[in-house]
Amino acid sequence: MRHRMAAGSESVSTPHGRRGVALFGATGYAGREVARLLGAHPAFRLQAAFGGKERDGVPLSAIHPSLRGSVDMACVGLDTNGGLDGAVRALAEGGLDVALLATPEALSLALAPRLLDAGFRVVDLSGAFRLARSSDYPEWYGFEHGAPGLLGGAAYGLSEWSGGTLGTARLVANPGCYPTAALLALLPLRRAGLIDPTEAVVVHAVSAASGAGRKVREDLLFCEIEGSVRPYGLPRHRHLAEIAAQTGLVPGAEVLFFPHLAPIDRGLLCSIALRLRQGAGASAVAAAFEKAYAAAPFVRLLGEGSLPATADVRGTNACAIGWTCDAATGRAAVFSAIDNLLKGAAGQALQNLNLMTGRPETEGLPR
Amino acid sequence: MRHRMAAGSESVSTPHGRRGVALFGATGYAGREVARLLGAHPAFRLQAAFGGKERDGVPLSAIHPSLRGSVDMACVGLDTNGGLDGAVRALAEGGLDVALLATPEALSLALAPRLLDAGFRVVDLSGAFRLARSSDYPEWYGFEHGAPGLLGGAAYGLSEWSGGTLGTARLVANPGCYPTAALLALLPLRRAGLIDPTEAVVVHAVSAASGAGRKVREDLLFCEIEGSVRPYGLPRHRHLAEIAAQTGLVPGAEVLFFPHLAPIDRGLLCSIALRLRQGAGASAVAAAFEKAYAAAPFVRLLGEGSLPATADVRGTNACAIGWTCDAATGRAAVFSAIDNLLKGAAGQALQNLNLMTGRPETEGLPR
Amino acid sequence: MRHRMAAGSESVSTPHGRRGVALFGATGYAGREVARLLGAHPAFRLQAAFGGKERDGVPLSAIHPSLRGSVDMACVGLDTNGGLDGAVRALAEGGLDVALLATPEALSLALAPRLLDAGFRVVDLSGAFRLARSSDYPEWYGFEHGAPGLLGGAAYGLSEWSGGTLGTARLVANPGCYPTAALLALLPLRRAGLIDPTEAVVVHAVSAASGAGRKVREDLLFCEIEGSVRPYGLPRHRHLAEIAAQTGLVPGAEVLFFPHLAPIDRGLLCSIALRLRQGAGASAVAAAFEKAYAAAPFVRLLGEGSLPATADVRGTNACAIGWTCDAATGRAAVFSAIDNLLKGAAGQALQNLNLMTGRPETEGLPR
Amino acid sequence: MRHRMAAGSESVSTPHGRRGVALFGATGYAGREVARLLGAHPAFRLQAAFGGKERDGVPLSAIHPSLRGSVDMACVGLDTNGGLDGAVRALAEGGLDVALLATPEALSLALAPRLLDAGFRVVDLSGAFRLARSSDYPEWYGFEHGAPGLLGGAAYGLSEWSGGTLGTARLVANPGCYPTAALLALLPLRRAGLIDPTEAVVVHAVSAASGAGRKVREDLLFCEIEGSVRPYGLPRHRHLAEIAAQTGLVPGAEVLFFPHLAPIDRGLLCSIALRLRQGAGASAVAAAFEKAYAAAPFVRLLGEGSLPATADVRGTNACAIGWTCDAATGRAAVFSAIDNLLKGAAGQALQNLNLMTGRPETEGLPR
Repeated sequence: MRHRMAAGSESVSTPHGRRGVALFGATGYAGREVARLLGAHPAFRLQAAFGGKERDGVPLSAIHPSLRGSVDMACVGLDTNGGLDGAVRALAEGGLDVALLATPEALSLALAPRLLDAGFRVVDLSGAFRLARSSDYPEWYGFEHGAPGLLGGAAYGLSEWSGGTLGTARLVANPGCYPTAALLALLPLRRAGLIDPTEAVVVHAVSAASGAGRKVREDLLFCEIEGSVRPYGLPRHRHLAEIAAQTGLVPGAEVLFFPHLAPIDRGLLCSIALRLRQGAGASAVAAAFEKAYAAAPFVRLLGEGSLPATADVRGTNACAIGWTCDAATGRAAVFSAIDNLLKGAAGQALQNLNLMTGRPETEGLPR
Repeated sequence: MRHRMAAGSESVSTPHGRRGVALFGATGYAGREVARLLGAHPAFRLQAAFGGKERDGVPLSAIHPSLRGSVDMACVGLDTNGGLDGAVRALAEGGLDVALLATPEALSLALAPRLLDAGFRVVDLSGAFRLARSSDYPEWYGFEHGAPGLLGGAAYGLSEWSGGTLGTARLVANPGCYPTAALLALLPLRRAGLIDPTEAVVVHAVSAASGAGRKVREDLLFCEIEGSVRPYGLPRHRHLAEIAAQTGLVPGAEVLFFPHLAPIDRGLLCSIALRLRQGAGASAVAAAFEKAYAAAPFVRLLGEGSLPATADVRGTNACAIGWTCDAATGRAAVFSAIDNLLKGAAGQALQNLNLMTGRPETEGLPR
Repeated sequence: MRHRMAAGSESVSTPHGRRGVALFGATGYAGREVARLLGAHPAFRLQAAFGGKERDGVPLSAIHPSLRGSVDMACVGLDTNGGLDGAVRALAEGGLDVALLATPEALSLALAPRLLDAGFRVVDLSGAFRLARSSDYPEWYGFEHGAPGLLGGAAYGLSEWSGGTLGTARLVANPGCYPTAALLALLPLRRAGLIDPTEAVVVHAVSAASGAGRKVREDLLFCEIEGSVRPYGLPRHRHLAEIAAQTGLVPGAEVLFFPHLAPIDRGLLCSIALRLRQGAGASAVAAAFEKAYAAAPFVRLLGEGSLPATADVRGTNACAIGWTCDAATGRAAVFSAIDNLLKGAAGQALQNLNLMTGRPETEGLPR
Repeated sequence: MRHRMAAGSESVSTPHGRRGVALFGATGYAGREVARLLGAHPAFRLQAAFGGKERDGVPLSAIHPSLRGSVDMACVGLDTNGGLDGAVRALAEGGLDVALLATPEALSLALAPRLLDAGFRVVDLSGAFRLARSSDYPEWYGFEHGAPGLLGGAAYGLSEWSGGTLGTARLVANPGCYPTAALLALLPLRRAGLIDPTEAVVVHAVSAASGAGRKVREDLLFCEIEGSVRPYGLPRHRHLAEIAAQTGLVPGAEVLFFPHLAPIDRGLLCSIALRLRQGAGASAVAAAFEKAYAAAPFVRLLGEGSLPATADVRGTNACAIGWTCDAATGRAAVFSAIDNLLKGAAGQALQNLNLMTGRPETEGLPR
């Protein structure tokens, strides 16, 4: 079996001493970034990379030319009809026990239980385990959740806020790109009780086209996106459920979310308008951010009046946050920028993997 | 005198029967679009085009290569130190009586009184006459208004809403690009009393780089903007004052405004979140839009759930408007897209000129 | 039958007096531009627009949002398995006799004979009839030509050079985008005998992504093209055959061709290096261009040392040409820029239609 | 003196054991990349960063927001009128002996002699020392060379070809971005005698806007470049002199060069057409490339028929090279892609610094 050989040809402790990792969904953009980061990580290495059946044996660097010279292994084609058990078994026999899923929800739902049963620790980059209640899935994702028993034990992997729980987590739900940026901006104020709940928090966001993945769809063609800005995914994008759940705000009533697409290939900006609780002002806001992120290596606090641009964090795992406060009206606006493929996907997955395994949080991650 | 010859060499009624127009600020992006539109207008023609002194005698098509073949006249250098009176006099002697100002506020403030005194009708594309109260200028524009006596008589030229007043207006303040898109989306709901004033209306907008004009500044270089989305102009962009004044909402309290820059060369999108008045819902919203724009040739109502993209209106004077309503929470979101250089500047200026002079509203304007 | 009703519901002479035109391939980018241009043409109007079966009944403005407000008809789904005869018959019964094909070669090969038999005059935007010898098709297009009998009678529609033959042509092969730009730059020098044939003419070209059409392919996704420049289609792009045939140069030996893709949505630049015949210099070059294009309304000669940019001709049917000559070495370089969707496709098709039907050459075309 | 304190406050061997480096021209794009690379280099560290006088004391991360979090030092304002001697002396007293110049030619010409006199080893990223003959400067650079005595001793730092000479070089002229890509593609064939010199080698190239530096010029504004491709710098760009000198071909006769600008922020592609010497074919071409770059860690040979894209090497110091050969006509085309700011500027500068100081060639450089 091809994947057995691919996965089993080396033990976990490689000659270089790096721990092997299995990656599912290696042919997409998030998968590419995971592969790139693992290629330069001091403690982990990509040992098996899975893609669609039709990609079996194709070098990853042929699928992603930018990996040429740094990641030279072949993609393993995954037979999603009946081949999952064998693939997982082969990985386990090869000594692997860590897997990253950069796969669609349906495939993550099929893979995660098998991997957990085989003793793996799993970071899933899809939305399959982000919502705690299985009853939310029909409304927000359009399907009945196939593994509701896993939801209770899944840790929500917003590294800066969930870090403490990750050391023992066996299944980590990597946050969505929009929720990552929105929550890093909102949680300090929300947890400090600075947000007036009687007025909706309005989250406007603009994302790169890579946020939609490498799907071959007409609306993702270059000529459909170049030169254009547009809203999409309304009225209720699934990331709203995630933002609402993590902030404890009612989606559509206490928190609103408006995603947009801009002609950039990577990057995501959140612009959040909110009313401060009576009596709260600029100093309380600054204090809340500084307290929340004093020890957060990837959060760049720009301070009041200094606003982030997506280009400032391109290619890094950082989140840059700036804000403005208007004492006269009690309003604040918070702005956060991330690289959607790194802090919004692959970078945070590895940050979580570092935290899960006791490695330094910043190891192998561009700041 | 050069400009005398340029301006005075033809009478108002040209051999082609088109009425001559003077354009100040011909070297910027809005000026370029005015020149282009006049080049193909059946009723008006560009007769004198003014720019900085250093451009005197340079063909407009050398300054704007895209005009080559359609606009071939030379730019007239304007001596802003003492040369304004002479320039205006020469134009008047040449028989002109219509002027478009695509100039900075300071120059518009110097030119408009002189032109009005000389009998001209003036459309000003700057912010110099957009706010009705001179006392607002120090706060929002940073200068004392030099011609407060003109503010009362200036018509605010949001064509779809001010059309009736333009027939007799002698000075028209062409709206800002952001206010144009925001007000076309907001006014139907506001005038119909559908907006709940107890919660702030949040206007989030994304603009092309050309919105900043053709200023030679480091932050407008290609490499500073390409691949990046960023907020700017906060906490209180001057267009907020304009939006607030026209809607009667208190800026910073009842209406908030967050402008952003995206890597596109033309286009502007407004995304507006608001709470509907108790009892108002999707049908009232649709009715308000349909009533407001039943006879508006440049407004494209996309309807509920259909969202505009800036590329859809590129190169046209149209404004595309779509919206979503959430009956459960009483929220609505309205989205409007324009070409910032046309409906947001030069196109609306000519639409206004058509209305001022009794021409068909759509004449010479791309739809 | 749907298309019968669509096509037959109006006579050729509409109430507006504009002659009806049938468009096949209305859902692609070239088809969109044909539809847009016909929407504003004084003498022609789009009367039937065909697309794939799955688009039957869908408004063209839903397929191309930028057409909203200007082109409001529904797309007619074409059954390519057996439905072509009926579609053509219905059009003919509806009184139409002009058709534009913005279809792939295979469909053009199936449609053109049927349309010609039914008395139509046809402009084909594909490569199906561009090469005069059927024996060239296997090598350059990868198929045996299915209608070799039509090749002899097909006129090559490079408007500026073939204009005289179009008045009587029944089938016009609209040139490829690259050949249009390359030939407009080369033919004046070639016909004047100024090119030294002992050294290869090197044609280097950069095109917008829309040159590949609206194909839903991974390599045409936004994130695959944004921020990147790359060569493609080598070693022997089919447009080389066309350039060679029209110049009489041997492809790959006397003329070389290197196409590239840049992250722009429309525009095409050719940069051509060549050796001048002994004794020929800058004045002979300038004279050749001036003589060739003295009466060509869409060619903008920039002259020696003035170089075109694709943005200068965006949205127009113009071709801008500039050049440099080096007397010391006998080399010249010629640069030509077009909008690949207009002069390189839809615009030239209508320019040809104007010439075929005795209309003014520039009618309905943006300059 | 400010720069004395800035430069002299630490010894060469820092607590981290990294050797201090002085950077002149830290405020431009190449300077930014040098600073970024030094921030993560294991053996070198940025110890003094100079910019214009008006930037004195401004944090580099305020000038380049993408450096925030990784490079936090302040810029030192350099008084170019009389302050150079003091600046160099202070650096030397601070124990530094390595300097990188990302400065305009004129400033490099002023700084290099002073730095060399003070015992520094210097890598200059400008064109000031790239041409061996001072007599070439008036023709190609428009000035008389002010330090002709240094030209003989300056090493041309095309790392893959000059590596052996750099160990003892005191002044290294870092190649231009175009020559880097062109020469890496040409030299293997030229040195192997595979190019037929009787026909011109035609080098077409397309560069990112950052190749022009961070100059505040109207033609470098976003809206002047977005959506457009254009040639520039003709007839004789100064990089032609550099390509000609290194290949021994006569500029304008035996080698031609046509640079173009595309709307990308980083990246450069060379496309080179040439005639192979009688008898040479695909296997000789492949052998020449493989021999030349067998031990070159930054050259990615894609092989015949595989063509590079600029995005493939973005953010790396790599050069990707592919080619095609036509046995029938004896022509070959070679394509090379680099990141113009890395392999074309800052990356190669550090690669050269590694080679000059006996460090591993790849140290601190992204592959």
